[in-house]
Amino acid sequence: MATVTPTPLLKDELDIVIPTIRNLEFLERWRPFFQPYHLIIVQDGDPSKTIKVPEGFHYELYNRNDINRILGPKASCISFKDSACRCFGFMVSKKKYVFTIDDDCFVAKDPSGKDINALEQHIKNLLSPSTPMFFNTLYDPFREGADFVRGYPFSLREGKPTAVSHGLWLNIPDYDAPTQLVKPLERNTRYVDAVMTIPKGTLFPMCGMNLAFNRESIGPAMYFGLMGDGQPIGRYDDMWAGWCMKVICDHLGLGVKTGLPYIWHSKASNPFVNLKKEYKGIYWQEELIPFFQNTTLPKECTTVQKCYIELSKQVRAKLSTIDDYFIKLADAMVTWIEAWDELNPSKTSDESLHGAAK
Amino acid sequence: MATVTPTPLLKDELDIVIPTIRNLEFLERWRPFFQPYHLIIVQDGDPSKTIKVPEGFHYELYNRNDINRILGPKASCISFKDSACRCFGFMVSKKKYVFTIDDDCFVAKDPSGKDINALEQHIKNLLSPSTPMFFNTLYDPFREGADFVRGYPFSLREGKPTAVSHGLWLNIPDYDAPTQLVKPLERNTRYVDAVMTIPKGTLFPMCGMNLAFNRESIGPAMYFGLMGDGQPIGRYDDMWAGWCMKVICDHLGLGVKTGLPYIWHSKASNPFVNLKKEYKGIYWQEELIPFFQNTTLPKECTTVQKCYIELSKQVRAKLSTIDDYFIKLADAMVTWIEAWDELNPSKTSDESLHGAAK
Repeated sequence: MATVTPTPLLKDELDIVIPTIRNLEFLERWRPFFQPYHLIIVQDGDPSKTIKVPEGFHYELYNRNDINRILGPKASCISFKDSACRCFGFMVSKKKYVFTIDDDCFVAKDPSGKDINALEQHIKNLLSPSTPMFFNTLYDPFREGADFVRGYPFSLREGKPTAVSHGLWLNIPDYDAPTQLVKPLERNTRYVDAVMTIPKGTLFPMCGMNLAFNRESIGPAMYFGLMGDGQPIGRYDDMWAGWCMKVICDHLGLGVKTGLPYIWHSKASNPFVNLKKEYKGIYWQEELIPFFQNTTLPKECTTVQKCYIELSKQVRAKLSTIDDYFIKLADAMVTWIEAWDELNPSKTSDESLHGAAK
Repeated sequence: MATVTPTPLLKDELDIVIPTIRNLEFLERWRPFFQPYHLIIVQDGDPSKTIKVPEGFHYELYNRNDINRILGPKASCISFKDSACRCFGFMVSKKKYVFTIDDDCFVAKDPSGKDINALEQHIKNLLSPSTPMFFNTLYDPFREGADFVRGYPFSLREGKPTAVSHGLWLNIPDYDAPTQLVKPLERNTRYVDAVMTIPKGTLFPMCGMNLAFNRESIGPAMYFGLMGDGQPIGRYDDMWAGWCMKVICDHLGLGVKTGLPYIWHSKASNPFVNLKKEYKGIYWQEELIPFFQNTTLPKECTTVQKCYIELSKQVRAKLSTIDDYFIKLADAMVTWIEAWDELNPSKTSDESLHGAAK
């Protein structure tokens, strides 16, 4: 008897983006789940190095020379020697959805011992609505066996389209350098069987390790900033993207989920190196969070691009007092959008026409 | 060898409030956990009926005659023939903490098969801070094995004092009548091993079945409204309290947690009866939620009482257009605070002095 393998969800509508500096043996572990999908590998560091990709994967690979060639002077907005370079992959993708994962992340097991298909869970998260307007105490109401509880307004039960699915990590938790130093042996062993929407108006620390999003609805907001080589900070790339993205999602009525799926995060990065990268971010963020908490976007900002350009103006106006870095970052935010629109022209002209017709 | 039984947490600082119309055999199942604590039983319905309480429990019991005798004309603010009457127990308690539970709630088991000590988990929730200002993706950072993740601002890691701990239910979920009718067989079997803070500015549906709070910090806001006998609605008592309480907690910088502990909810109430009680609430809440979402309290409101009186004024001004019921409810809110202050005089005069000295 022949068995029928079901077609993987969104097989032709999703790219997997992987930033890396090493050979990608970790893909062997993901083979049953990732092989049907197309990969975009963003090679960081020395472009003359050859990155080995296991046989049988369908991929395109970009190194720094490729980035410079494709973007020309606009390549300045793409970080070097920092996993922030992953956002170049978001820009060159032509798919509706993106899943991005770090190369030190492996397949985790659920409490029953079964391998977790992280990508499938992300896709389920993205394809079902979010509930940012009101909190549901039984978590995701769209999940099997759950629903909206008594007292949840019926008019809000349609939910909002989901733009981002933020997955978590078993084993090595995503701690900052000070916490790593204080708790070197702490491991995350708690499997919390929940997906939830981050409420409107609430910020959260978005980690880029295990993350999926609807590129069509929120892609241009997923800029990972200027980090690494030549920049005063690192390890705030995903945080920056998360804060910008959340403010824009709240403004545009899009949802952000966090929780399942878990991946197995294998190796803690060096806390001393991390501290050096992070220390400015640690005190800057004390001003960045109130800035993002108080940011509002005018109603004329009807597209992600317009929101992002407006946000870059507010960054320049309000954050440049912290450090000149934020002027450079605001410029890079504009360059990023210009580069995005250049590489994704049809979408932009559609939106311009749409905007002009209003 | 003698074994030492540890003293139960907060043994002399917490009352268990139980509204009921029947004999309390359900306490047999809770004996190992509840017996060390004092119970306040609020007998609803016919006061001539005798409620049997299992041997060995330390309790006081109030029926309608007692409520009328103690509060005089102010007894009008306490609902009759509705579990909303439980808030009378909050008012007569002299303890710092209250745990309230319904008499159809039993001891649930965790995934390892162990009986869950719901009260102990509530106490842990109340005694550790909340994090309403920023979302932590690994849930309660104060729990063993967890912490604040990378990108969580250090200045916010102290958290806020926790005022309320909202527990959940395995087996029969807390659904409204329409959902009960549509999904009569749905049972909650998902044990989500998490406690989380409801972010500032976010409303949620608070259920009174399995609920604990710091009576000293938020008690006067835990008014369950006018429901049941002679009133146009029922089953919105805990919702009303939850919305009022959350707005006041947000204003005063107090935290609200939801998640663990679970209780086992044994029996679904009749959906037809529930529909009759709920139907006005179902459409009224469409206006109530925006009202509470947009409510702000002036900074002069520095105590729960002052916040609550201010809220009653806004209810009268803005909700009376929905139905005259809200005028009656606004009056009852004021009566409730007057009765609270009468029964809890020292606290009030302290606060008045404190207020006058400012």
